[in-house]
Amino acid sequence: MITPEEALRFIVSNTPSLGPEFVDLEDAPGRVLSEDIVAREFLPPFDNSAMDGFAVRAEDLKGASPESPVGLPVQDVRQAGTGLYSALRPRHAVRIMTGAPVPPGADAIAVKETAASDSADFVRIIHGPESGDHIRRAGEDVKIGDLLLEKGATLSPYDIALLAAQGVTRVPVVKNPRVGIIATGDELVSPFSETPFGKIRNSNGPAIAAGVRRWGVESIESGMAPDDPAALERAFRSGLEDRDVLLVSGGVSIGDFDHTQTVLKKIGFDILFWRVAIKPGKPLLFAKRTAGRNGPRYAFGLPGNPVSALVCLEEFVRPALEALRGARPRHPSYHLSGRALNAYAKPVNRQQYIFCRARREGETFHLEIIRPQGSAMMGMASRADALAVAPIGVSRIQPGDELAFRWLK
Amino acid sequence: MITPEEALRFIVSNTPSLGPEFVDLEDAPGRVLSEDIVAREFLPPFDNSAMDGFAVRAEDLKGASPESPVGLPVQDVRQAGTGLYSALRPRHAVRIMTGAPVPPGADAIAVKETAASDSADFVRIIHGPESGDHIRRAGEDVKIGDLLLEKGATLSPYDIALLAAQGVTRVPVVKNPRVGIIATGDELVSPFSETPFGKIRNSNGPAIAAGVRRWGVESIESGMAPDDPAALERAFRSGLEDRDVLLVSGGVSIGDFDHTQTVLKKIGFDILFWRVAIKPGKPLLFAKRTAGRNGPRYAFGLPGNPVSALVCLEEFVRPALEALRGARPRHPSYHLSGRALNAYAKPVNRQQYIFCRARREGETFHLEIIRPQGSAMMGMASRADALAVAPIGVSRIQPGDELAFRWLK
Repeated sequence: MITPEEALRFIVSNTPSLGPEFVDLEDAPGRVLSEDIVAREFLPPFDNSAMDGFAVRAEDLKGASPESPVGLPVQDVRQAGTGLYSALRPRHAVRIMTGAPVPPGADAIAVKETAASDSADFVRIIHGPESGDHIRRAGEDVKIGDLLLEKGATLSPYDIALLAAQGVTRVPVVKNPRVGIIATGDELVSPFSETPFGKIRNSNGPAIAAGVRRWGVESIESGMAPDDPAALERAFRSGLEDRDVLLVSGGVSIGDFDHTQTVLKKIGFDILFWRVAIKPGKPLLFAKRTAGRNGPRYAFGLPGNPVSALVCLEEFVRPALEALRGARPRHPSYHLSGRALNAYAKPVNRQQYIFCRARREGETFHLEIIRPQGSAMMGMASRADALAVAPIGVSRIQPGDELAFRWLK
Repeated sequence: MITPEEALRFIVSNTPSLGPEFVDLEDAPGRVLSEDIVAREFLPPFDNSAMDGFAVRAEDLKGASPESPVGLPVQDVRQAGTGLYSALRPRHAVRIMTGAPVPPGADAIAVKETAASDSADFVRIIHGPESGDHIRRAGEDVKIGDLLLEKGATLSPYDIALLAAQGVTRVPVVKNPRVGIIATGDELVSPFSETPFGKIRNSNGPAIAAGVRRWGVESIESGMAPDDPAALERAFRSGLEDRDVLLVSGGVSIGDFDHTQTVLKKIGFDILFWRVAIKPGKPLLFAKRTAGRNGPRYAFGLPGNPVSALVCLEEFVRPALEALRGARPRHPSYHLSGRALNAYAKPVNRQQYIFCRARREGETFHLEIIRPQGSAMMGMASRADALAVAPIGVSRIQPGDELAFRWLK
């Protein structure tokens, strides 16, 4: 049994990012850059007005006040989007709209609100701007050659704005992992089936697909297999043909019908770890096959119990998928802290993920630990809105204890 | 000018959720339930073993210890997924796998690890279980008639597991809003174009689409229109034909070329508010058309500056889209708190959203306020990883001041 930290280190050090590909700008949100993007244009591309008003020479308006406004002839009008203009003549003003290029010779914008009166060809200004006021300078945000976006950045809407502004319409990103999901177990029937006595519906398949899809993985295939080594081998081989990652639920304990590990070994996988000091999720298994003409393949053996499977998915599979898709580690997930409202006993030698309901009172979050919580209790997990974590070494949570948690909803 | 809280109240009270529809289970993750789901089966559906081991009568194993193990004949084997069995005979054991139905007559599972030795037909147990140990009782998680999932729930992977387990494969959800995006401005050209002097590429369209898509909206149409009332009217009318929400960027200030408001009024919209005491984003406009054969329509006038547009999108459009898709308000978004590393001056009468870089040291987050930050500075916004909020009434942030913030990445 290894610690969850060791498991995460194993995972992240064995999942180098996939290769690069180009996608259209509209498909780029949420994807991860496979290379640095260097600015090829200035932003803004030209000096432009930040306000509606009048482009002027600041020195022409020195001393302007409500009592003694300065009058200037209006030379012409510049709205956004029109092209080159003549320069500003001395002691003149150009009526200008937000975003329009500042005419040569002007060094400030007198905003509209400082015009005491104006007609098409004359304006009286009651407050003179300082030189530079309300002008956005070419390149003040981005200069040619600046590092625009760094390799490894997950593209946010702000990044998309930046790429669009620079005309980067084909974006180099890391390939997205393709994921196969196989729920194993003789007891499983499809969610579309009736359940004869002794059978249960496959809930892991749809739930794992839902989780994985949330993290930007689009290509997901899902199936079921019985607890039979030959059938599992066929399912695994077929699942791996054009998939980078195989997520197998069930068959990872030490029972007589737990074949996941044996079959993975048989088809060329190295078991990188098996069993992690966590609850739920102890039998978690991680394996990798480096040989093979189609590049490396990864497999997780997830517990068959749905709550355990989904906890392992979020805590261990997600970091693997993010590493494969090139994402840098994010800010810590358990960065919130709350006070337990009730007591809870846990195994001292395992890190436990505890399903709670969180409630905010003033600056404090209160965590009601849901009891009982079993690894097959989907209803329980679904009622929780927060997942707290209690570390190895703690055997009992007392009311008032501080617990790190993250939102589930 | 209204406060941001008033604006949010206006938005939420004017955006009732859209009508219901049914989707397949695999399309349900992230969607919002349009009605309560009541459990139609027990979960687990039958008493089953939580461990690999032996189904026994606890009283038969009283006093079992390593020194005096209790031997029992093994009656048969029950693996998960097989159907009905005969009852457990007195002073016998049934070898049982996790998930298999517990035979009538058995009241506990002696886990595999307590078997000192076992053969196909005989086992010696060194530690007797208590009655009820390691048995998951039918209905202990969910009973028929229980409220399984509540109307308004955003379906998480745990919820999907629950629906799959119950065989709910067609899921009643609230319709997703269909969104049209129109970037306005004579200065705009497509991101695919070269930029003649005075023109800039449309960055708002792709960035707004990226943001909206992240919140589960799938149906998005995007276009551009010049600063011309007739052209805007055509674009708005066409954009609204089969769209619930129109997001217009630009043309919402008080300039001579700001026609968004006038045109929205002309095509039957009521302006619910215009101008909010925020920075960036002051000219934000929200409008609604209730008449019309295709049901209500909503329009936001977003500022033309991309940073302002994206802040308004997250702070005001997102709550509207979530209300339309039936989602209940989530936990507060600005629930993190950090200490400013540097000083910053802000307008006292506006709530300011401040772009920062957050760094964690021990239990404390430090916020480096990026300077300068302008509403057109996409490069600046893209370098930030946290958005802090400073309320109305504050005119200056000092180093060490506490600021609420949320992650941007």
